Amino acid sequence: MARIVMKFGGTSMAGIERIRAVARRVKREVDAGNQVAVIVSAMAGDTDRLVNFCREASSLYDPREYDVVVSSGEQVTSGLLAIALQAAGVKARSWMGWQLPIHTDDAFAKARIEDIDTAALDASLTAGEVAVIPGFQGLADNGRVTTLGRGGSDTSAVAMAAAMKADRCDIYTDVDGVYTTDPRIVPRARKLKQVTYEEMLELASVGAKVLQTRSVGLAMKENVRVQVLSSFTGDDAPMADTLPGTMIVGEEEIDEMERQLITGIAHDKNEAKITLTNVSDTPGSVAAIFAPLAAANINVDMIIQNIAHQSAGRAGSTDVTFTVPAVDLARSIQALNDAKDKIGFEELVHDTRVAKISVVGVGMKSHAGVASTMFTTLGQRGINIQAISTSEIKVSVLIHEDETELAVRVLHTAYGLDADEAA
Amino acid sequence: MARIVMKFGGTSMAGIERIRAVARRVKREVDAGNQVAVIVSAMAGDTDRLVNFCREASSLYDPREYDVVVSSGEQVTSGLLAIALQAAGVKARSWMGWQLPIHTDDAFAKARIEDIDTAALDASLTAGEVAVIPGFQGLADNGRVTTLGRGGSDTSAVAMAAAMKADRCDIYTDVDGVYTTDPRIVPRARKLKQVTYEEMLELASVGAKVLQTRSVGLAMKENVRVQVLSSFTGDDAPMADTLPGTMIVGEEEIDEMERQLITGIAHDKNEAKITLTNVSDTPGSVAAIFAPLAAANINVDMIIQNIAHQSAGRAGSTDVTFTVPAVDLARSIQALNDAKDKIGFEELVHDTRVAKISVVGVGMKSHAGVASTMFTTLGQRGINIQAISTSEIKVSVLIHEDETELAVRVLHTAYGLDADEAA
Repeated sequence: MARIVMKFGGTSMAGIERIRAVARRVKREVDAGNQVAVIVSAMAGDTDRLVNFCREASSLYDPREYDVVVSSGEQVTSGLLAIALQAAGVKARSWMGWQLPIHTDDAFAKARIEDIDTAALDASLTAGEVAVIPGFQGLADNGRVTTLGRGGSDTSAVAMAAAMKADRCDIYTDVDGVYTTDPRIVPRARKLKQVTYEEMLELASVGAKVLQTRSVGLAMKENVRVQVLSSFTGDDAPMADTLPGTMIVGEEEIDEMERQLITGIAHDKNEAKITLTNVSDTPGSVAAIFAPLAAANINVDMIIQNIAHQSAGRAGSTDVTFTVPAVDLARSIQALNDAKDKIGFEELVHDTRVAKISVVGVGMKSHAGVASTMFTTLGQRGINIQAISTSEIKVSVLIHEDETELAVRVLHTAYGLDADEAA
Repeated sequence: MARIVMKFGGTSMAGIERIRAVARRVKREVDAGNQVAVIVSAMAGDTDRLVNFCREASSLYDPREYDVVVSSGEQVTSGLLAIALQAAGVKARSWMGWQLPIHTDDAFAKARIEDIDTAALDASLTAGEVAVIPGFQGLADNGRVTTLGRGGSDTSAVAMAAAMKADRCDIYTDVDGVYTTDPRIVPRARKLKQVTYEEMLELASVGAKVLQTRSVGLAMKENVRVQVLSSFTGDDAPMADTLPGTMIVGEEEIDEMERQLITGIAHDKNEAKITLTNVSDTPGSVAAIFAPLAAANINVDMIIQNIAHQSAGRAGSTDVTFTVPAVDLARSIQALNDAKDKIGFEELVHDTRVAKISVVGVGMKSHAGVASTMFTTLGQRGINIQAISTSEIKVSVLIHEDETELAVRVLHTAYGLDADEAA
């Protein structure tokens, strides 16, 4: 007997036929003797419909009322899945966020789960009832409904797994696991059996959109074993406890056999590069650049400051290059131009035709030479590196976006990640 | 300053433009200094969509889960109306049924309101906030969501008006009031300024579908002044406190000027007539007819027993005729045939081509001759009366359905109800 959380996304809940297929998948776990809580998303498209209603009603909508409106999508699917489970002969009931309750802070429309009451839930699970719980929603201290922000159902699932001390949190999604890189670019990408939380965070934040980033951070903090696996296989799919997907676990849990220097290669085309030319090379000038961006809540990622070029008779000046999310480019230009006098730059040059390529792996903590291999491999193919950033388990470079696929392929081979056969 | 409840149906909530029009209507009441609670229905069509989901998921759905699913429609519109009110500069917030809460019994999918907590609501209204409350929903003692059955939002509105001691409960609907009869049949039908609860119950139950019957009964019990008025007039419509619709009140409140012998004429084509021939005229034989119908939860309305015809040498026999709702006809035939031996009838004859015509008015309590006028008027036009039933304030006859319009028109004239000009 295990206690597990199963989470199904909007595509899996899109229509009664699919909900019935989910019910059969849940029934297999129940028949295997497991206690199961299911976290459901709204039907695909439903949340967008509800969000659009709110926006149409007022561009400055009250987030407390927005939460009332958009939380209804998951309410519908949780009731329907409970009905479908009962029709399949499985004891089941739905629990709204306010019924358990799932306590959150009062940051309406982007709330964080603080605590989940599991007393009633435990009794129900122990009595053999499947609990169907809407993702994405909770209850603030003032008794009003909250939502966790888009993609919040992954976080609901992980938080529920932590609260009910589940053995596993299975996230059913439209991919069948986490790959060494994007299989559309590298057909020989391999599905990973295991990946650490830290690696998953780096892979997610640079473009591998399998799990909501916040849910991975929470899984790491709460030490929840998360499995990503496919919701689109038939009733003869392997049981989830045979681990057919990718397990996301702590570093200490990784099998020695599975350990590799590099776990995966991610790419991200959603960055924009900004260069400010001839910034005066005096104390405080760099701070003057980033203060207005921080004030505008814009995340700056890679930063390079060129070597100052000195001319006789005046202070040195330097070019400063950095990246921001492409969606924030216009606001960034505005903020920087507004502060032009204070910063004292000559020209602002920007470029959205860039891509960030990252090699990720906990193995690099104890191995030198990872970055060097990356630079050499790209150099041999004539790929120009525009910026570099590193963390303990990641090396990222900025290149021209036209070279994305080439870079990912040559790096995938260089780090020995290619499978014997195409996926 | 008055305290009022305003209730808007699904057509008024169908889309953001209409919700904005409702917000303007509410704002006019707020600007006039009133405290306002608004009861809303789901968007037109939305409840049907949700009910169909449940039916598709299982023909034997759990009503507790059905209530979770279908109550979401009103949740959406209450959040949206709160947003639209705020956008119009009106302080407003939504209150779900479980938040107030609106306590009901645990008859899921057809619950009855038992009690409404108004402490938090009172504070909010007194602080000048409009309360937006989803109709049709409540909370059972076990903490689960209930719904009141189709059309329950009228009942929600009346119950809320009673609980918050409102001066008036204004029901905005797609007609502008209650008429002396169906204006599609009689263009000279007059809008009634006032009608008593009892009359409204008779008019509603025989086909004037302006208000849900249960809500009228509740208004009578709780002595709530209910006004029916149109939601489809522009921003220059008269204010509701000038009573432009029809007020439903206790008999003692009816203006002397407004008192009439007959208030209205209703028709109902949803009955079916059943005749059992040659039922043996012995004690208990009639009971044997109606027991199986009662057991099948079928409401029998008009009953006539013909005079027994006696033949030499055997017990008398008689024909028994009665009406049932047309939707229950098949089940009625089944139940009667199953009990044929016990009842002892010869033949079962049925006819759905009948109509029930009723003249309604509290005035007839103190006036004789109402029924006589009805029979004479119909007889002069050659309209055959197949059955008769009466109550203190109503006389109903069953006729061939082809003669419905003719009967309604001649009776409307005979009782002096025609307006000077067509409506």
